[in-house]
Amino acid sequence: MQTGSGPQPADFADVRATNLAVVLRFVRANAPCSRADIAASTGLNKATVSSLVADLIDRRLVRETGLTERRIGRPATQLVLDGSPYAAVGLEVNADYLSAVAVDLAGQRLLSWRRTFAGSTAVPSKAVAAAAALGRRAAARMAAEGRQVLGLTLAVPGLVDAAGRVPLAPALGWRDVPALELLRQALGEPAYPVAVDNDASLAAVAEYRYGAYAGTPNLVYLGGGSGIGAGLVVDGRAVRGGHGYVGELGHIQLDPGRAGRDGDGPECECGRRGCLQAVAGVGALVRRLLPDAIPDGGAITDLEPEVDELVRRAGAGDPATTAALAEAGRWLGHAVSVLANLINPQVVVFGGYFVPLADWLLPAAEAEARAGTLAPDLGGCRLVPSTLGHGAAAVGGAARVLDAVDAGQLPQLLAAGPAK
Amino acid sequence: MQTGSGPQPADFADVRATNLAVVLRFVRANAPCSRADIAASTGLNKATVSSLVADLIDRRLVRETGLTERRIGRPATQLVLDGSPYAAVGLEVNADYLSAVAVDLAGQRLLSWRRTFAGSTAVPSKAVAAAAALGRRAAARMAAEGRQVLGLTLAVPGLVDAAGRVPLAPALGWRDVPALELLRQALGEPAYPVAVDNDASLAAVAEYRYGAYAGTPNLVYLGGGSGIGAGLVVDGRAVRGGHGYVGELGHIQLDPGRAGRDGDGPECECGRRGCLQAVAGVGALVRRLLPDAIPDGGAITDLEPEVDELVRRAGAGDPATTAALAEAGRWLGHAVSVLANLINPQVVVFGGYFVPLADWLLPAAEAEARAGTLAPDLGGCRLVPSTLGHGAAAVGGAARVLDAVDAGQLPQLLAAGPAK
Repeated sequence: MQTGSGPQPADFADVRATNLAVVLRFVRANAPCSRADIAASTGLNKATVSSLVADLIDRRLVRETGLTERRIGRPATQLVLDGSPYAAVGLEVNADYLSAVAVDLAGQRLLSWRRTFAGSTAVPSKAVAAAAALGRRAAARMAAEGRQVLGLTLAVPGLVDAAGRVPLAPALGWRDVPALELLRQALGEPAYPVAVDNDASLAAVAEYRYGAYAGTPNLVYLGGGSGIGAGLVVDGRAVRGGHGYVGELGHIQLDPGRAGRDGDGPECECGRRGCLQAVAGVGALVRRLLPDAIPDGGAITDLEPEVDELVRRAGAGDPATTAALAEAGRWLGHAVSVLANLINPQVVVFGGYFVPLADWLLPAAEAEARAGTLAPDLGGCRLVPSTLGHGAAAVGGAARVLDAVDAGQLPQLLAAGPAK
Repeated sequence: MQTGSGPQPADFADVRATNLAVVLRFVRANAPCSRADIAASTGLNKATVSSLVADLIDRRLVRETGLTERRIGRPATQLVLDGSPYAAVGLEVNADYLSAVAVDLAGQRLLSWRRTFAGSTAVPSKAVAAAAALGRRAAARMAAEGRQVLGLTLAVPGLVDAAGRVPLAPALGWRDVPALELLRQALGEPAYPVAVDNDASLAAVAEYRYGAYAGTPNLVYLGGGSGIGAGLVVDGRAVRGGHGYVGELGHIQLDPGRAGRDGDGPECECGRRGCLQAVAGVGALVRRLLPDAIPDGGAITDLEPEVDELVRRAGAGDPATTAALAEAGRWLGHAVSVLANLINPQVVVFGGYFVPLADWLLPAAEAEARAGTLAPDLGGCRLVPSTLGHGAAAVGGAARVLDAVDAGQLPQLLAAGPAK
């Protein structure tokens, strides 16, 4: 399943849903505010606004405060965002870890769990089941706190189609996995909406909502895990593409170079040669610089200690390490120049294991990107490390649920929970 | 200036404009239809629909027909698209030609002119003036036909920012050209809106509106002129990017390959080496295969006869020609795989001079793209030649004007023209 960040174009049949979402977004942006403020700013008439606000209050998405604003004439009751009885859950399964987060409607993090997990060696059903088990625990925690789960999204490092199937996820060894179906079953067919999406796309949604460059309409997230995924936000919306197969920056072939030749670039986990992640991925760097860390032909099950070691060596000025990181940075910069020439991002956020390595990767990446981009000054693009930490994809999974609410898919309050 | 194809998300303050646009688009899609049909399908109440329709009739964007539809109760007057008093104009300036088109609100072509023009050797102000002269003649023709010009867009093969400035257009030798300002001046500060945009982006808008794959939400246009520009439609909208510097596929460096090395790829007009268009552009092919056609170090001023000669040789089975075209096709396929991995287009439309060469380029391109794309079956992408001919960018310039109307920037009828 794919995500659309931000508002979607109005269709003919959903005017009320669109207007509910307009009012909800207005309150989010302008609270505290009155019904009259909403009417004045949205162009909706006052009776419509009152009806829409009543609906939002019934759903406990908005609440009246005791405060009023003194105006000429009657004092106006002030409205603020509520959402206290709700939570959105995001999960991530990756080559070497699982994570779960829950956020409230305002984006406050309610829980954040991470555990080492050998995703690259587990069979798909086991991997999904492990993620689902974490998700059930998160949902149970939310229920115990009196919160209704609005939805749950699982982030997967691979191709995810509109039906939540994963035709290919090389980092996990998945092929033709009905991930959404497995997830729904493993969760016990829950009442809330469940979705599966690409990890980097979700991380980009998280950056767009909560990152240091939140709201930047042209933003790319580059996730450094065992591979390299890109999440693209273009003109304020997450890119979905024809079938959802987007952001596979790690598998663009830069090294074989000459078309029609068998390249001599390093072999990639996808079976081809010279893919970006085979020359510049963190997994490739570890294999090259710490050959003893990973058993012969073995899968990577936990990169964190190895990345720590690379950081230690680079920090100590080890020439082999800094040279390899600079070389990887140049490849990443070449890939950034491709993005810059094609979609002119304003910021490229380096996430995952790229964050601790950023001091050695980013200067080389920026110089190479600048040299390879037609537009002067890299088209105004900045290269920065993420501030969201490793949970970005899971946070994006939760944010995707909130995006659906903002776009007008409003929840019905199932029961008056004990919250507050 | 950039274009957004299709509807834009509703802002808070433009509910009436949005609703006018909703009604206009509904009539475009469903005419003949009644006010009751519009109300039933849009969710707008009947009084609002009547007011909106009255506004559209005043502007002569919609008209009542004599026909009525028999219903239970009163017969309903049927509405159809009008727009007869309007025209939208598109211009294109390129390395070897100028073109102009005008279309009515329904997209019917009212005029289509093309002339050879040495854009690559003319100084920018002369080039803009030559385009403007063609535009003034087109506008005069429209006025003589009783049509009000809704707007005019000039297509330029290069980077165009949001203010209509061109920081760089290598094919024209332009650098820091205030194209929009020059155009407005040369047109005599007209009353209608004037814009400048990238040629390939506009051609993609034209394909999205009028091409064989019209309405395909993920569509890429690859324009084969002296260089190679890409126009990207993603999830139903033309990509604008941070500053409008998008679609420079011709300047992604595929041949130098290895990061940090001085590549040995052929030199590009942008000053770097190994850019896609230096290895696979039509200009590069002509230089390589027909070295006598272009004076030493000289600029290309008319590719058409040379492309005809390449088609003749390839059709006769000349091995050097077919091998060079297949090699160029593989490079183009490599570039398509980059697009397919990143944004998963459903169709890549090859336009301009790629059209007559498609029989020799596309099979190699498709095989290479398939091999280089992670998603199975090229992510469902098709490679096809354009059916719009050389005027695609100019048609897109006119379509961009109509997009603005569809998005709610409705014209005021300045005078009751003589058009029927």
